[in-house]
Amino acid sequence: MRATVPGSELERRRLALQRLMAAEGLDAVIVIQNADLFYFTGTIQSGCLYVPVEGEPVYMVRRDVRRAEAESPLGRIVPFSSMREAPGILAGYGIGEPARVGMELDVLPVSLFERYRKVFAGAEFSDATPLVRRVRMIKSSFELEIMRDAARQVNKVYERALEVIREGITDLELSAELEFTARREGHLGLIRMRVFNGEMLFGHTFSGPDGAVPAYTDTPLGGPGLNPAFGQGCGVHIIAPHQPIVVDFAGSRNGYLVDQTRVFALGGIPERLRDGHRDMLAVQEKMRELAVPGAAWGDIYDACLSLALEQGHADHFMGYRGSQVSFIGHGVGIEIDEYPFLARGFGDMVMEAGMVFAFEPKLVFPGLGAVGIENTFHLSDNGLEQITFSNEQIVIL
Amino acid sequence: MRATVPGSELERRRLALQRLMAAEGLDAVIVIQNADLFYFTGTIQSGCLYVPVEGEPVYMVRRDVRRAEAESPLGRIVPFSSMREAPGILAGYGIGEPARVGMELDVLPVSLFERYRKVFAGAEFSDATPLVRRVRMIKSSFELEIMRDAARQVNKVYERALEVIREGITDLELSAELEFTARREGHLGLIRMRVFNGEMLFGHTFSGPDGAVPAYTDTPLGGPGLNPAFGQGCGVHIIAPHQPIVVDFAGSRNGYLVDQTRVFALGGIPERLRDGHRDMLAVQEKMRELAVPGAAWGDIYDACLSLALEQGHADHFMGYRGSQVSFIGHGVGIEIDEYPFLARGFGDMVMEAGMVFAFEPKLVFPGLGAVGIENTFHLSDNGLEQITFSNEQIVIL
Repeated sequence: MRATVPGSELERRRLALQRLMAAEGLDAVIVIQNADLFYFTGTIQSGCLYVPVEGEPVYMVRRDVRRAEAESPLGRIVPFSSMREAPGILAGYGIGEPARVGMELDVLPVSLFERYRKVFAGAEFSDATPLVRRVRMIKSSFELEIMRDAARQVNKVYERALEVIREGITDLELSAELEFTARREGHLGLIRMRVFNGEMLFGHTFSGPDGAVPAYTDTPLGGPGLNPAFGQGCGVHIIAPHQPIVVDFAGSRNGYLVDQTRVFALGGIPERLRDGHRDMLAVQEKMRELAVPGAAWGDIYDACLSLALEQGHADHFMGYRGSQVSFIGHGVGIEIDEYPFLARGFGDMVMEAGMVFAFEPKLVFPGLGAVGIENTFHLSDNGLEQITFSNEQIVIL
Repeated sequence: MRATVPGSELERRRLALQRLMAAEGLDAVIVIQNADLFYFTGTIQSGCLYVPVEGEPVYMVRRDVRRAEAESPLGRIVPFSSMREAPGILAGYGIGEPARVGMELDVLPVSLFERYRKVFAGAEFSDATPLVRRVRMIKSSFELEIMRDAARQVNKVYERALEVIREGITDLELSAELEFTARREGHLGLIRMRVFNGEMLFGHTFSGPDGAVPAYTDTPLGGPGLNPAFGQGCGVHIIAPHQPIVVDFAGSRNGYLVDQTRVFALGGIPERLRDGHRDMLAVQEKMRELAVPGAAWGDIYDACLSLALEQGHADHFMGYRGSQVSFIGHGVGIEIDEYPFLARGFGDMVMEAGMVFAFEPKLVFPGLGAVGIENTFHLSDNGLEQITFSNEQIVIL
């Protein structure tokens, strides 16, 4: 397995993190979570990456160090068996005891954290996740090319849906066919979510009233799932005419995701749902006008929510009343819940060139199902590029 | 979606936890992780389960409370929006401020833990995970019946492998076919792992030298994966004659897993691998003799390891030299890394009737691949029941 992320790319990422670390007064960030390790090292091994505020990082690897050397262009890859060895290893590179250390406290379990605290007993620890998220939210041209390829993959899934959807098959059968298609196209099969307890499988495929079943997931649509043990996504509803068939699917290429939702129907679709879908396309147009560098995340959210309310969808937008979610868009990349969030509550965070995000205005009608659209967009100084590109209209089959 | 776990089953589980809590002097355990929530409530919703040392637990649910009520037979299900409401809600049930609280500190992120500490500011917190694991490691007849059904599913995957394996297809194509088969049989698609950074997709399918590629996973076999972003499991090696084709696959039914590994080959297999496979079946027989109620986990491990060393496999058993793992068996249930672990380092933990575990003696030969066996076993007072049942010999196709 050869390295797939160039060394220059890793250097750019590390320097961006170090700039934020310097501004926060951190001496070091210790990266331990899979998605972040992949981002900063180009591989995922059992171990941790020690990033000093200046100079090259040190990747301490328990297993497998030979794979780490083969897959990562980093220069400082060191075998180790216990965190207790870390200070000695770091001293060998002239890196002294840190006074202020950042770690990914949103994902780091308490028990594991205690072990790090013992190793760096003199240090003050703080949450490095906002810094890591801010670095990761700006995608490079290298990352964008991969994500455009993931969009081509998800379009193949869309095209397969056109072939597979027919009366009488279950949502599970449709979903399994689409997953099968994606896997053979190189989908890693894994959808990484950062949020605690976040779980997802390729995406959500469901039809008719099942599209309106809320779930524990922080998503506008939930779905029944096959069982309460994993109560989201497809159940075994039988696909029938005049019901919306929702295919919300994440494409996956070389560790990167894109997110796309499309709606299909057999024979036709009730007027209310057809009109609702048209309204969601209008909300997407509103977002297109507003998503420019410098726009506040919360302002885009507010304006799009206002439009949906004007359209009369107060009880249906982003979930049915009582189960609504408080965002319309989310960043995508290695994880499906990255910065930015088009939502309130993120203070003065603004849109920046290089961001990639999914925007998913959706409507839920209990008993009928769900409609709406989801695309993945890239914001550049030249405007908004839509990365996912399948036909946006409800496809009547 | 109807409840799938009977109320009597949940009560038995909760009482078992409360007995351990009393022995540890805990006033409450707050359960927050998906797998544990499913175990103690019969559903997974966004929220937490407050288990007092005596009396009924209180399930506080953010979303979706209607699904919680439909899917869980628990009596005390309460909507809430913030943990700050918890003390008031609990007071309503006559539950006072706890002095000693257990939480799942092996999975609970630091940031989230801080919020709980603020809510129960007077309490002393400790790790409840060993207690939860000890309750969950003893399976009921209700759980066993589900796991036997999962074994029938994984046997269908095995039978599908017999049909699909042929010269010239890639490991990815084989894996995708097997995943597709499992999904249509009701596999949830998700393999839950408790360990931090634990990720898995159905299992691992690879052939020839790819079976000997080590990975970051704490598994005897690793595999290259499609990409360093998820460097485990199948790559795109082309299936060729006289190479071992390893199908390590987890069956999944109603939230429960079983684990099975089988080996196939086209035309024949080198003598060294054939003999090695025979030796691993002998190690399995050794385990069968030793796994009786009261036997120490570490003693079973030591005896099986000794046999593998006597067989001459010091450099190949449970991984190739430098990448070997230090266990031969692991409990399975809702997660794939449950108690018991047939490994050293678990002190005086012993085998008990009701345990279900996978046992997977395997050999790794760089350049050639891997062989070995994995079955899921249930220990009862009447002896060892083998739950997975596909043909154990290397199948020559």
